[in-house]
Amino acid sequence: MNADKIPDIIVGRLPVYLRALQGMAEKGMKTTSSQELGENVGISAAQIRKDISQFGEFGKQGTGYSIPYLTDKLREILKVNRMWDVVVVGAGELGHALSRYQGFTNRGFRVVMVFDNDPSKIGNKIGEFTVEDSASMVDRIRNANIKIAMLTVPAAAAQSTTDKLIQAGIKAVLNYAPVSLNVPANVRVQYIDPVTHLQRMTYYL
Amino acid sequence: MNADKIPDIIVGRLPVYLRALQGMAEKGMKTTSSQELGENVGISAAQIRKDISQFGEFGKQGTGYSIPYLTDKLREILKVNRMWDVVVVGAGELGHALSRYQGFTNRGFRVVMVFDNDPSKIGNKIGEFTVEDSASMVDRIRNANIKIAMLTVPAAAAQSTTDKLIQAGIKAVLNYAPVSLNVPANVRVQYIDPVTHLQRMTYYL
Repeated sequence: MNADKIPDIIVGRLPVYLRALQGMAEKGMKTTSSQELGENVGISAAQIRKDISQFGEFGKQGTGYSIPYLTDKLREILKVNRMWDVVVVGAGELGHALSRYQGFTNRGFRVVMVFDNDPSKIGNKIGEFTVEDSASMVDRIRNANIKIAMLTVPAAAAQSTTDKLIQAGIKAVLNYAPVSLNVPANVRVQYIDPVTHLQRMTYYL
Repeated sequence: MNADKIPDIIVGRLPVYLRALQGMAEKGMKTTSSQELGENVGISAAQIRKDISQFGEFGKQGTGYSIPYLTDKLREILKVNRMWDVVVVGAGELGHALSRYQGFTNRGFRVVMVFDNDPSKIGNKIGEFTVEDSASMVDRIRNANIKIAMLTVPAAAAQSTTDKLIQAGIKAVLNYAPVSLNVPANVRVQYIDPVTHLQRMTYYL
């Protein structure tokens, strides 16, 4: 299958299915149905069947999905059947929280470096990490062949920092700065801005 | 217009447009075009015109959009032309970061209370806040008539905490716990889980 042929909106739902399946597995469940999975994630059973069938026939009529099998398949499709090294850029409170977050490793990611340009932060310890000087960031990332960055710098610094990350070979940026980034077509950006989510809800209040 | 008639996917883009317009205003810009706004946010000009036209005619052929006028209209549509009180539930590192985040107030939100059930955290200061005991949460939220909560508790506690929040009258939950929540139809949930965003990008790597 060609990665570009699957609509991104479907790709975006797969991690949610995977998370739900992992939660079911932790509860000791072995099989599930599109109905049950749908109730868990708030998406219709028909949509789930349609989404998953884009990638192959992973369920059986009548018996549903094997949780370990579908989990393995989704991890393979999303390429998280391996560990991805990630850098955190910006060692403020959010950068701290992300660097110490325990929820990455069992889902395919581990933070390996933390950078900041603030002399009062460089050299500080965050758990097992020492905050490194952004001045060495491009070389450090390139030499370690890291492809993913989480960006927690102030909005005003986000674009210039992103430009440096791209220069360093980063291909995926999870941007926590509340600003849209301009990147080349071969670089992916995802945004986490709590206010956009809050405003999407106040519309309905 | 009827709020329910506009697809949620369109509603979800309005906060992104609003954020970009506020950024332009901060740079001293007075007018913009759907083309320019589109380049800023990475969405086509045609899509932006279509989205905005769902709510009225806010631009002029040839002269484009007045930034202050469109900003006001979007703030009105999203109901953030007022200040919303928000509670933070879970006073871990992420709860700390959110409680102290400076980027809420100029976009319609202010944190007013922080709760935790951990005796070692209750009573601690986070900036101007004192962490309150979750045992008093339902009464405190109901008495203050607060409608929005940010949830940063562990995954295992997320559903039971949400049930209490709904009991307290909360209608919008921004959930940072990596688990899907079951809520009644009159309650909105938005999810922030960095791993789902990261996995949506690794698919393409």
